[in-house]
Amino acid sequence: MSPLARSRSPLAIITDFGYRDHYVGAMKGVIASIAPATSVIDITHGIPAQSIVAGAIVLRESWRYFPPLTIFLAVVDPGVGTERAPIAIDTRAGARFVGPDNGVLWLAASAAGIKRIVKLTSTRHRLTNVSATFHGRDIFAPAAAHLSRGTSIASLGPSLRSIRQLELPRPVQSSRELRGEVIYVDGFGNLVTNIDRDRAAQFNACFRGKSLSVRIKRGTAAIRIVDAYAAVPKGAPLATFGSFGLLEVAIRDGNAAEHFGAGPGSSVSVVGPR
Amino acid sequence: MSPLARSRSPLAIITDFGYRDHYVGAMKGVIASIAPATSVIDITHGIPAQSIVAGAIVLRESWRYFPPLTIFLAVVDPGVGTERAPIAIDTRAGARFVGPDNGVLWLAASAAGIKRIVKLTSTRHRLTNVSATFHGRDIFAPAAAHLSRGTSIASLGPSLRSIRQLELPRPVQSSRELRGEVIYVDGFGNLVTNIDRDRAAQFNACFRGKSLSVRIKRGTAAIRIVDAYAAVPKGAPLATFGSFGLLEVAIRDGNAAEHFGAGPGSSVSVVGPR
Amino acid sequence: MSPLARSRSPLAIITDFGYRDHYVGAMKGVIASIAPATSVIDITHGIPAQSIVAGAIVLRESWRYFPPLTIFLAVVDPGVGTERAPIAIDTRAGARFVGPDNGVLWLAASAAGIKRIVKLTSTRHRLTNVSATFHGRDIFAPAAAHLSRGTSIASLGPSLRSIRQLELPRPVQSSRELRGEVIYVDGFGNLVTNIDRDRAAQFNACFRGKSLSVRIKRGTAAIRIVDAYAAVPKGAPLATFGSFGLLEVAIRDGNAAEHFGAGPGSSVSVVGPR
Repeated sequence: MSPLARSRSPLAIITDFGYRDHYVGAMKGVIASIAPATSVIDITHGIPAQSIVAGAIVLRESWRYFPPLTIFLAVVDPGVGTERAPIAIDTRAGARFVGPDNGVLWLAASAAGIKRIVKLTSTRHRLTNVSATFHGRDIFAPAAAHLSRGTSIASLGPSLRSIRQLELPRPVQSSRELRGEVIYVDGFGNLVTNIDRDRAAQFNACFRGKSLSVRIKRGTAAIRIVDAYAAVPKGAPLATFGSFGLLEVAIRDGNAAEHFGAGPGSSVSVVGPR
Repeated sequence: MSPLARSRSPLAIITDFGYRDHYVGAMKGVIASIAPATSVIDITHGIPAQSIVAGAIVLRESWRYFPPLTIFLAVVDPGVGTERAPIAIDTRAGARFVGPDNGVLWLAASAAGIKRIVKLTSTRHRLTNVSATFHGRDIFAPAAAHLSRGTSIASLGPSLRSIRQLELPRPVQSSRELRGEVIYVDGFGNLVTNIDRDRAAQFNACFRGKSLSVRIKRGTAAIRIVDAYAAVPKGAPLATFGSFGLLEVAIRDGNAAEHFGAGPGSSVSVVGPR
Repeated sequence: MSPLARSRSPLAIITDFGYRDHYVGAMKGVIASIAPATSVIDITHGIPAQSIVAGAIVLRESWRYFPPLTIFLAVVDPGVGTERAPIAIDTRAGARFVGPDNGVLWLAASAAGIKRIVKLTSTRHRLTNVSATFHGRDIFAPAAAHLSRGTSIASLGPSLRSIRQLELPRPVQSSRELRGEVIYVDGFGNLVTNIDRDRAAQFNACFRGKSLSVRIKRGTAAIRIVDAYAAVPKGAPLATFGSFGLLEVAIRDGNAAEHFGAGPGSSVSVVGPR
């Protein structure tokens, strides 16, 4: 692979290791040792500890914005040291994914079109001493670094037929409401739901263009669906199809998660006019 | 532009996106897709949410330390999706700035000497689908990446005559005190004021070299002005002209913001001898 | 030094500056100005403020995973502006270390084999104006950047005969217990102790293979020593030799520091069967 091609294949990392310890640093040291010319990009290390669902959602929302041949290294791994397999996935879109087989790779890899899955068993492509507590450093980082140097995915281990899937809850439609739930809370406190624009448009069609609104928890006032956070006064609630392409409930210049006492699993409904 | 020149023009990013989500990661993916050889440097993503003033101060304090042709991408953007313009600025110092026209670029860009301002309207230099909630990814990151590849600032859109200014409060001098206020609280809890060394020296001249002290809030004891944090015992308060070149109030090995219950807007005075 | 060699010598940074301010950004700007082709890697900036011990432990745990000629820049510097010397260290392992002479470099540098120590006095290798509060930007970052460009360590200043050492507490063995203490708490709340695998094996020999357990604080139940976090049910306590190679007490998918109200200095004992 030419240097130019290499420079177009960054290695992007997402973990729940946070920003206090040396865990991410040790992984980057391993990568720099194996593939010194590889460009390494942090997506985030702030995934809530052990939250496979949050990791899977963040990876799904970010992978499309990277160059086509990017290698994604995702380590949210509460089952480290157990029999859950370490895997790498090649996709039809060109992106490759490395991480534990616990669902964290599923949403992004299936959207990219899974072409091949291998179990990371090759001892030549991991550290000599593999701990039972830190496969990010000992197995995943070396595998991703070798891929970025041009090692074929087939060299890393035998093929697997299937992997662990992760299904997000789906919204439920009745005549009166489209009922979804919060699946992710971002750092601003915005409540991201499982209701996408198409699903809402379909529900909207039933009301012939009359304006819809959003309800979070029973008994609270209806919230307007607007195009931008700044379409309402400061401190006011709003609903918008945000950068995820999903309906989110926010407070202008404020924190909706705190305001509503809501989080993952909280019910959010789109409702028609009274 | 030669590879060497490129390697001297990093793209430095400052945002209030925090470290939990994929927002910064998506921006970096966009940059890597457009300008894979550009070196990307994080200044910080920890600006308090929607705090344009904090973003402006941090950018003003850091830009001078970067290579002359650095491109600064600053996204603190509570008005995203409204009519506030997305802009790029070229300066006499060589630095270029990209971000929303809400004041966040003002302090640094005016210090660097504004030469040209453009409104980012070119559809060839943004993503195909522009959301109303995430211009950092859809407009600002592509513009900055194109600049780093050598695209001229004039290609990005029409010139603007003026931009939104941001004025910090100024200290007020009387015969007895030079009264300023806290404009920034850093991560150690140090209280950074709007009183710079020159302003204090000028006030000091009135007292013919007799020693000055600092008062934060009425009724609290006078605080010594010293040269280093470690010039006082652990746990003791001090005042010093810190790395901002501004008077700051600190607690040795402690947190002054918590200790004094102070923050942006709190009054801090330099006072002469009794 | 050839470009290839350079690309194998990243500059790895560890500080207690946190993620809110421009402090790390200003250091990176200085490095990019002096050594634009150097690859800069963040180990962490989340060391607890002024915690020299935490900085020293994190550096000791990470340096081995980096390429042999890496330059480590460690800034945890409560004594900035006092007579504590700014230093650089060359080691037999090839790694070089730059930072304050306050113990933060000791554990890693002595493990790497100290070959030469210099005091950073060369005015050609620091910024023109040196503040009394931010040597990370004004002295340490320039020195590290010059080293990464091939400047010899001898050019940076005169040799020193010795530096400040840092000794961690040692575990104490009696007939009934091996008594250690918590020396580090990671971001997951895992309690890392000063008891390593060899020390525990030696104690274990006294009991002829009968199973040991761990006690944290008097009166609490015995905790099993297992191989992986996931070897116990969710929410249950466990002890394991973690990625530090040290005994740590954890809660599966939980936070042991909060659960036990424990932190640095808390007693942890390995005990034999009753």
